[in-house]
Amino acid sequence: MIAQLNLTADPADLTATLVDIPSVSREEGELAAAVEVALRALPHLEVTRSGNTVLARTALGRPSRVVLAGHLDTVPVNENLPVRRVGDELHGLGTVDMKGGDAVMLHIAATLTEPRHDLTFVFYDCEEIEAVHNGLRRVERDLPDWLSGDLAIVCEPSNAVVEAGCQGTMRVELRTAGTRAHTARAWLGVNAIHALEPALRTLTGYRAREVDIDGCRYREGLQAVRVGGGVSGNVVPDEAVLTVNFRFAPDRTVAAAETHLREVFDGYALTVTDHAAGALPGLTAPAAAELVAAAGGEPVGKLGWTDVARFAALGLPAVNFGPGDPTLAHTREEHVPIAQIHRCAEVLARFLT
Amino acid sequence: MIAQLNLTADPADLTATLVDIPSVSREEGELAAAVEVALRALPHLEVTRSGNTVLARTALGRPSRVVLAGHLDTVPVNENLPVRRVGDELHGLGTVDMKGGDAVMLHIAATLTEPRHDLTFVFYDCEEIEAVHNGLRRVERDLPDWLSGDLAIVCEPSNAVVEAGCQGTMRVELRTAGTRAHTARAWLGVNAIHALEPALRTLTGYRAREVDIDGCRYREGLQAVRVGGGVSGNVVPDEAVLTVNFRFAPDRTVAAAETHLREVFDGYALTVTDHAAGALPGLTAPAAAELVAAAGGEPVGKLGWTDVARFAALGLPAVNFGPGDPTLAHTREEHVPIAQIHRCAEVLARFLT
Repeated sequence: MIAQLNLTADPADLTATLVDIPSVSREEGELAAAVEVALRALPHLEVTRSGNTVLARTALGRPSRVVLAGHLDTVPVNENLPVRRVGDELHGLGTVDMKGGDAVMLHIAATLTEPRHDLTFVFYDCEEIEAVHNGLRRVERDLPDWLSGDLAIVCEPSNAVVEAGCQGTMRVELRTAGTRAHTARAWLGVNAIHALEPALRTLTGYRAREVDIDGCRYREGLQAVRVGGGVSGNVVPDEAVLTVNFRFAPDRTVAAAETHLREVFDGYALTVTDHAAGALPGLTAPAAAELVAAAGGEPVGKLGWTDVARFAALGLPAVNFGPGDPTLAHTREEHVPIAQIHRCAEVLARFLT
Repeated sequence: MIAQLNLTADPADLTATLVDIPSVSREEGELAAAVEVALRALPHLEVTRSGNTVLARTALGRPSRVVLAGHLDTVPVNENLPVRRVGDELHGLGTVDMKGGDAVMLHIAATLTEPRHDLTFVFYDCEEIEAVHNGLRRVERDLPDWLSGDLAIVCEPSNAVVEAGCQGTMRVELRTAGTRAHTARAWLGVNAIHALEPALRTLTGYRAREVDIDGCRYREGLQAVRVGGGVSGNVVPDEAVLTVNFRFAPDRTVAAAETHLREVFDGYALTVTDHAAGALPGLTAPAAAELVAAAGGEPVGKLGWTDVARFAALGLPAVNFGPGDPTLAHTREEHVPIAQIHRCAEVLARFLT
């Protein structure tokens, strides 16, 4: 029994319907089926499917194309289902990240039969887990022409303002070596945990850079995210590991970020374990400038990493634009103001009409 | 089939025989059986057993009694069995900790039928694991009169010199609290790992005290032994824990040690998780002074914690005296000079005759 979605209804009501179809990562099948059936009912769209990713597009021969993307999956349920309406807000898992954005996309797909730009819609799976499972990555490999266009709008929560580009992220491990000894004769050993002290001093004294790019402000950050070490309760430990996450503005490349960390943690054995490039805002591209104008100007820099960077790597200017406060994402208390859902739908309709 | 032990043989040969009867903690049954059978064959001794602990004693009506104690168990096998003789040394698991000492005790038990002091021998189990399993603790509860006397000699490795008293040990946890936040917006959080920096600065700058008591030198130590913290790779962590081990000279009580740590780590939430009092050297007691004289003077302070402290708590002056270098204990390469085994047997025979 596939759930019926009313795509022409109020997008806030549609958000509530989507929230009540649970879709934790890897379990998006029911929601993907509902989205696919609803989109196939629209004669102006070509629809295809890849795993639990559903894709739809117009073919109106417009000179330019806008790609709208949103993931269908959520983080695990945390006592925050079913959806609840509280005053002018919707509360529940996915209201912010990102079924409000999905509802706006579905609403646009159903109601804008004659858009000014050709449109491609990508509803994808497995964004909230390891990057290797990300549905957008599979689409990039198997259906690359579905990602081509002149502007990508990732409808991740951005408080209904245009967030441009995104910061990069890099994780490094600082590994210290020592010499084991019994703690009763500690002078025979070298303590690898004690050897982390200069690194912690670097972290507590670090002045994070702030930078303006295309009128967007980016604020970097350098944070310890994990520390571990120890052999047993009476042994001077011979190894410790400190994991640090660096969030860097998109004017740094991945290579430049690594160089910076090697300077900052000079003297430590440093291994890069994970990284993702940032994305420059790209707001000088014509379609991006139109969207910013439709949204009333004043874009801001995106601090968290999103799939915007994936589109940027494909050569599309890309922005985030969706309802909800991104700082509430992944919290049990996530909730979205209904007015932001309406505003996103209106801004996109204005931009695309 | 219970192994035959020749207690009147060269104690170095007896050491080799004991090493080749594996007796990792909780698996001392075979060795305890061999020791029990060998001791029961000696008519001048009363023998009893408690679990895998074997006890034997004389009842000659002497005005004083010396208790000799040694544990039968070893740490786990680490590619260091069977025993190997290399030049003038025995190599293998337990050669140092402490089957050389056990062999000396068994040799004395068999050959000194008319000692100057009454003698009690305690061969006990489970010294190398959590204190709750320690066989000596069970004897203290179930057979307390077997631990009474005027001097205790724990034949733990001491390089065949008298090591007097022992240092105390205390483990504390320093727990820091912070506020979680996404690392992309780290200024919304408080990093609990960063909050360990002053504690590590305290540790790296700590000047360990050295103190002389009864002519024995004790050298204290303060070492981080474990550190842990972290939520996930993109979250500012809200909790971290640093475990510190303090080894303190026996002129500090447990309470004084705790007070010292609370001063040193002022500002941290500090929890004592484990402690054991030290033991003053007690070398002014007559029997202890006799032993020091028989060993040729020059006792040294014991730095590691041993069951000497358990006897001290029972009111017996107690010393360590056994063959082997204690810094080799628990290493794969442990080995004992045969000359030290002979010297310990000779010194004890001289002292007790």
